[in-house]
Amino acid sequence: MTLALDAAAQDLLFREARSANTFTDEPVTDEQIQAVYDLVKYAPTAFNQSPLRIVLVRSDEGRERLVQHMAEGNRPKTSTAPLVAILAADHEFHEELPRLFPHFPQAKDAFFAERPAREQSASFNAALQVGYFIIGIRAAGLAAGPMTGYDAAGINKEFFPDGDHSVLAVVNIGRPGESAWLERSPRLAYDEVVTTV
Amino acid sequence: MTLALDAAAQDLLFREARSANTFTDEPVTDEQIQAVYDLVKYAPTAFNQSPLRIVLVRSDEGRERLVQHMAEGNRPKTSTAPLVAILAADHEFHEELPRLFPHFPQAKDAFFAERPAREQSASFNAALQVGYFIIGIRAAGLAAGPMTGYDAAGINKEFFPDGDHSVLAVVNIGRPGESAWLERSPRLAYDEVVTTV
Repeated sequence: MTLALDAAAQDLLFREARSANTFTDEPVTDEQIQAVYDLVKYAPTAFNQSPLRIVLVRSDEGRERLVQHMAEGNRPKTSTAPLVAILAADHEFHEELPRLFPHFPQAKDAFFAERPAREQSASFNAALQVGYFIIGIRAAGLAAGPMTGYDAAGINKEFFPDGDHSVLAVVNIGRPGESAWLERSPRLAYDEVVTTV
Repeated sequence: MTLALDAAAQDLLFREARSANTFTDEPVTDEQIQAVYDLVKYAPTAFNQSPLRIVLVRSDEGRERLVQHMAEGNRPKTSTAPLVAILAADHEFHEELPRLFPHFPQAKDAFFAERPAREQSASFNAALQVGYFIIGIRAAGLAAGPMTGYDAAGINKEFFPDGDHSVLAVVNIGRPGESAWLERSPRLAYDEVVTTV
């Protein structure tokens, strides 16, 4: 056994898990999302900056506001998934930094005084957290359907009028429905990805 | 049980896992990294574009070339970790796209003909894969020490002279050593991160 993680967990999170395009109508509860968050919140970000913010779209009105900004090919699944989450980076994450990284409270001013530095850091670290969140959805026994096909400026204006957030992904969440996915596409071989110096 | 993932796996990947700052001298083998890759390669990216590229720094010469570009505070651990990996986004990932996403071979030209679109997509999707890779290191029973404190332009020039790659993180890998971490910093509460519309 080269890996410490048990085989069932490997299958649940990676090998058998797939991005779903259709879903059953079984609801996804707030308790499930809270359990996902309370697990993946521990995964690392630089200075523990934790810039990911999540909007759960539950109302019919919220769903309509979102679907209009999705690419046409993503609209049917975004309209029918039991739950849709908008994942965004908070460019003003530094306000919480003295509390989040008490070992080095100067980090807020030393590294993040300027907005461009904050935007770059928030985009990367929130993207890490999007990855963790997708794994967390799978840890809950649910399927994720992450999408980046949408009018980002439209979603930002619609859901984040403060101008301080930037959408990174929209994720459909639920139990996989009929014909939920195509055959799995091939992955790059190890030697195509990894080199040694 | 709100989560399907067993408690031991939750602890291994998230709750007990920590970013390590010191390491024992136990080697990290190519077989371990291959097992990590062969697990996390299945996690999703847009159009299965899989833009992450990994450079394993094993030689003394490679280590010296890297350490000179690290921020001073990161040099001691980067010098002493059993293995260091440079994680980068490949901005020319689209060349492999017809093979990686056979369901829609037109994606290469329809979405990724222009370099800025490719860079943006590669940066986000490779960042997702950095997150998956960190989880994979933990799945191998190892500790990761991800860092973004370095001269990125220097690393890019040193290790990716083709101009087609952009470093996203440098990760120390090994078994945690003495005083490997500080006390865990607090996380944001669910209600600070998640809103509902």
